Amino acid sequence: MKLLLRLKFLGTDFCGWQFQPNARTVQKVLTDAARELLGTDCRITGCSRTDSGVHANDFAATLECGDGVCTIPPERLPAAFAVKLPHDVSVLSATPVAADFHPRYDVLYKEYIYRILLTPVPDPFLCGRVWHYPKRLLPDAEERMNACAAALVGRQDFASFMAAGSKIEDTVRCVKYCTVRREGDLLTLQIAADGFLYNMVRIIAGTLLLAGAGKLDADGMRKIIAAKDRAAAGATAPPEGLYLNKVVYSE
Amino acid sequence: MKLLLRLKFLGTDFCGWQFQPNARTVQKVLTDAARELLGTDCRITGCSRTDSGVHANDFAATLECGDGVCTIPPERLPAAFAVKLPHDVSVLSATPVAADFHPRYDVLYKEYIYRILLTPVPDPFLCGRVWHYPKRLLPDAEERMNACAAALVGRQDFASFMAAGSKIEDTVRCVKYCTVRREGDLLTLQIAADGFLYNMVRIIAGTLLLAGAGKLDADGMRKIIAAKDRAAAGATAPPEGLYLNKVVYSE
Repeated sequence: MKLLLRLKFLGTDFCGWQFQPNARTVQKVLTDAARELLGTDCRITGCSRTDSGVHANDFAATLECGDGVCTIPPERLPAAFAVKLPHDVSVLSATPVAADFHPRYDVLYKEYIYRILLTPVPDPFLCGRVWHYPKRLLPDAEERMNACAAALVGRQDFASFMAAGSKIEDTVRCVKYCTVRREGDLLTLQIAADGFLYNMVRIIAGTLLLAGAGKLDADGMRKIIAAKDRAAAGATAPPEGLYLNKVVYSE
Repeated sequence: MKLLLRLKFLGTDFCGWQFQPNARTVQKVLTDAARELLGTDCRITGCSRTDSGVHANDFAATLECGDGVCTIPPERLPAAFAVKLPHDVSVLSATPVAADFHPRYDVLYKEYIYRILLTPVPDPFLCGRVWHYPKRLLPDAEERMNACAAALVGRQDFASFMAAGSKIEDTVRCVKYCTVRREGDLLTLQIAADGFLYNMVRIIAGTLLLAGAGKLDADGMRKIIAAKDRAAAGATAPPEGLYLNKVVYSE
């Protein structure tokens, strides 16, 4: 039986999702807990990699038991995992899926959010959970950022928004929506696409901040996209503001 | 010059506010930072003690420089403290007050909130910041809890809601308001009073949960108050759900 798990994790103390030698990763912690719970080696496959310090409000992964039998009914798995897992990761649900389901290749689209805190002093409750950006933005930063964000929507080549050195060749992706909402001192970027390049959301966040500071307009954003050159875009925003927020599959 | 500081702190890694030998307390961390910043010993006096693990969205304290002169203009102090303080405490503002102002005795009223998370599995983002209570409450828990909470409002003897062993003799306090709000799986108790007895909010939170489980009604709550006996009330809820939320002085 193959199960689809929905997870939530606080990325601060994880070296990302993916197995790495001698590193605390979500995949490792989850695989160890599954072995303890089910008494057999399990294969856990994620919907994407995430970087150190990046969070997930909704991460999807499949669980396959070594001997094909899951001894705990799926609906009881979240509570069972809660006993074994550390406090910074939780399994929210577990549901059976078809044997050929793949948590990465079958994704229709994913949504990320990126949170930026604009207060002069940091907030103790948001440390490691937002990008604290104490510099002043323009009063109409939200509108300016949204004008630039809108230029990103559609099927386009996002080569300018991929970390230098990535080996991916096809850099065309389809962005469904990309908006910025300001609530008090908290700016939230919300972006969905059929796929994301390495560091794409963090580079977009860093570039949109230029618009909030009055240094970029929609025309400039279109030029950055057209350049297909990482050097044309803004700085890469730090990992702590980034959350994988939604993973959508066709039903 | 005496300054009134407004602070925010995440209580998880603090042994409360008050100085204690060999313990990391907010008062100590703040006093050390002030000495470094101002180059002189400073006296920092808080609006109340808090227990280990208890948080503050708004804590008030006065700062008096040893030699009476504060070398940094008050409006620049928050940013200056931000450089010296650890990530779990921030100074939000600093304003001059009269020499005879006392941050504890001049309080008109304080507001606390207590947050309870009702999900079956814990939330990684709320660990240490709510009381995770996975047992099922009644569908109308919010109404039942509010009926009992209303019985607490007014000038009354709250001896039943004081930790056993406290040496306070006058246990009469005036509760201004006490309400419970449910938003999704998060229950928030909000309570204001001219003063609080030791563990009062945590005992009230534990007692109101009995109402949410159908084990206590408003009549029962009035009997608990009348008993003036700690044993009559419910269990003491854990510290991690408690936040000092507002400290109000007369202008």
